[in-house]
Amino acid sequence: MAAYVPGEQPAGGGYIKLNANENPYPPSPEVVRALLAEAWGSLNMYPDPMSNAVRDRLAKRFALSRESFVIGNGGDDILTIVTRCTLSTADTIAYPVPSYVLYPTLADLQDCRRLEIPYAPDFSIPKALFGNPAQLTILTNPNSTGPAVSTTEVKRLAESLKGVLIVDEAYVDFADENAMELTGKLPNLCILRSFSKSFSLAGMRVGYLAGPEALITEFMKAKDSYNVSRLSIVAAAAALDDYDYMLANAARIKATRENLRSAMTEMGFKVLPSQTNFLWATAPAPGAKAIYQALKERRILIRFWDREKLRDSVRITVGTAEQTNTLTDALREITGAANV
Amino acid sequence: MAAYVPGEQPAGGGYIKLNANENPYPPSPEVVRALLAEAWGSLNMYPDPMSNAVRDRLAKRFALSRESFVIGNGGDDILTIVTRCTLSTADTIAYPVPSYVLYPTLADLQDCRRLEIPYAPDFSIPKALFGNPAQLTILTNPNSTGPAVSTTEVKRLAESLKGVLIVDEAYVDFADENAMELTGKLPNLCILRSFSKSFSLAGMRVGYLAGPEALITEFMKAKDSYNVSRLSIVAAAAALDDYDYMLANAARIKATRENLRSAMTEMGFKVLPSQTNFLWATAPAPGAKAIYQALKERRILIRFWDREKLRDSVRITVGTAEQTNTLTDALREITGAANV
Repeated sequence: MAAYVPGEQPAGGGYIKLNANENPYPPSPEVVRALLAEAWGSLNMYPDPMSNAVRDRLAKRFALSRESFVIGNGGDDILTIVTRCTLSTADTIAYPVPSYVLYPTLADLQDCRRLEIPYAPDFSIPKALFGNPAQLTILTNPNSTGPAVSTTEVKRLAESLKGVLIVDEAYVDFADENAMELTGKLPNLCILRSFSKSFSLAGMRVGYLAGPEALITEFMKAKDSYNVSRLSIVAAAAALDDYDYMLANAARIKATRENLRSAMTEMGFKVLPSQTNFLWATAPAPGAKAIYQALKERRILIRFWDREKLRDSVRITVGTAEQTNTLTDALREITGAANV
Repeated sequence: MAAYVPGEQPAGGGYIKLNANENPYPPSPEVVRALLAEAWGSLNMYPDPMSNAVRDRLAKRFALSRESFVIGNGGDDILTIVTRCTLSTADTIAYPVPSYVLYPTLADLQDCRRLEIPYAPDFSIPKALFGNPAQLTILTNPNSTGPAVSTTEVKRLAESLKGVLIVDEAYVDFADENAMELTGKLPNLCILRSFSKSFSLAGMRVGYLAGPEALITEFMKAKDSYNVSRLSIVAAAAALDDYDYMLANAARIKATRENLRSAMTEMGFKVLPSQTNFLWATAPAPGAKAIYQALKERRILIRFWDREKLRDSVRITVGTAEQTNTLTDALREITGAANV
């Protein structure tokens, strides 16, 4: 089995890290304040196994019941819980490709079949995904390439399926629409969210799943008893209490994204429309690999996969406005030199 | 599937909590200092996926390679990783009973067969466990009832098995012996440890597995990419840097344990020998359930299972010397009144 390889995490400092879709801004100061208080607290005691401090705030925010939410050690923990609950050996998991590269690893861990359906160039939901017979279907929306589909289309997909549909909305706070309004209205639809991107808490590992109470109850049974630490619970709860801080950061990132998109388009990149905090682009000369390497020499890290179908593209996380200026200057140099 | 039910975590304060085998002492002040510094750090960035700050300290402590360790989101995460790696549908997991009640839940999640072998009253390794054909065998040592077996016996068990043997040493810092010296010397033996008990970090969720590099490499592939938060990594690393603090606390708890054991024996409890931070005892009149309830009215929580074979017993975590005095006074009242 091949392991999932996360983005490089260089040990030395001084890098502009635009390779792991991290938020360039720190979390709310309220989060830090809450952490400082809890660090003196009862770290010798187990955390609340239900993470109710987080569930109750989510319930209030989205006008749903506490029982509509399960909290995980990051979104990946939620995906582990869901795949363990829904997939046995020889069952099938379906998802469009390209998308989050963890899904095949999860499929292998469950010894199950993969129904991988290629996206068309417009990244609408592939026709073959509708009515597919898999026990579990995952739709990343916005996708991990950038584009998003409408809530109407998500609903149509859920209604066409007999199996469970997870809509992975890890990037949704950077998008125009989200499907949370469907939660509890369709028996097979669950929404996955993360505190890693928009809430600037990748380091704390908190994610959640919203869905019909009956499904959430089953997923609760499969999670590790104490899957979220005391400090992670405190951080997520404080972040939810300062929702406006997150929304303001997301707005800044969206504005910077559009500036970066214009600049890259001018340089000859073919940039996919993005409703996320990153841009996926086919590179002009001197090509994706050379650009990745030239940026790395300038201590700017972006994501590049030296694999079939992927090696003409780069994925660049949207940093601060300042980081983005440094990046675009470097990109102009690298692509300009190649086009002289 | 039945879910694992962790110990009660009462919302209100004022309880003496002796029901979840938590350490009554806070973690090292070095841990708190490290957390306060990191809370101002890069929480918006993902943690080190390998938790190398923890692995390197463990490697140094036990004179093993970094590659001999995988770090988990608590010991339960490690058990999840190991069961997912070693067990497919219709495979077998073997363990003696009674032991950690999570094992059957893990077996059910993998759709696999359970070979549950009853302990004899002396809690030596059951004969039928030697040479059993399971893909995975788990020995909790010290057991979750208190007694421990010798390292010689552990080695003999590992050598008799074709499958993987996990020795769950969650409580081992309260014991006379441990099997860490065997790590890397037998191809199928791994040692599971936790920061939850002796290091007073139940709230931070960190555990680890030590074993032969070849096995650890496989387990690494099955863990969630970023399974331990930045703050949990920092806390565990700082705790390892103050190992003597942990050893001093463990020594205090062992002394208190023996005092509690004498007192309870005098009251008519039949107490199992314990190499852990708790005592398992068959209760005198008015019986385990009545004692549990009477203590709860006095705001002292102990563990009681209202289930066949278990309902004549209680499990009591060893608290501070002061908490233990309060407990023994209460127990004397409750059992004394019943025996007038």
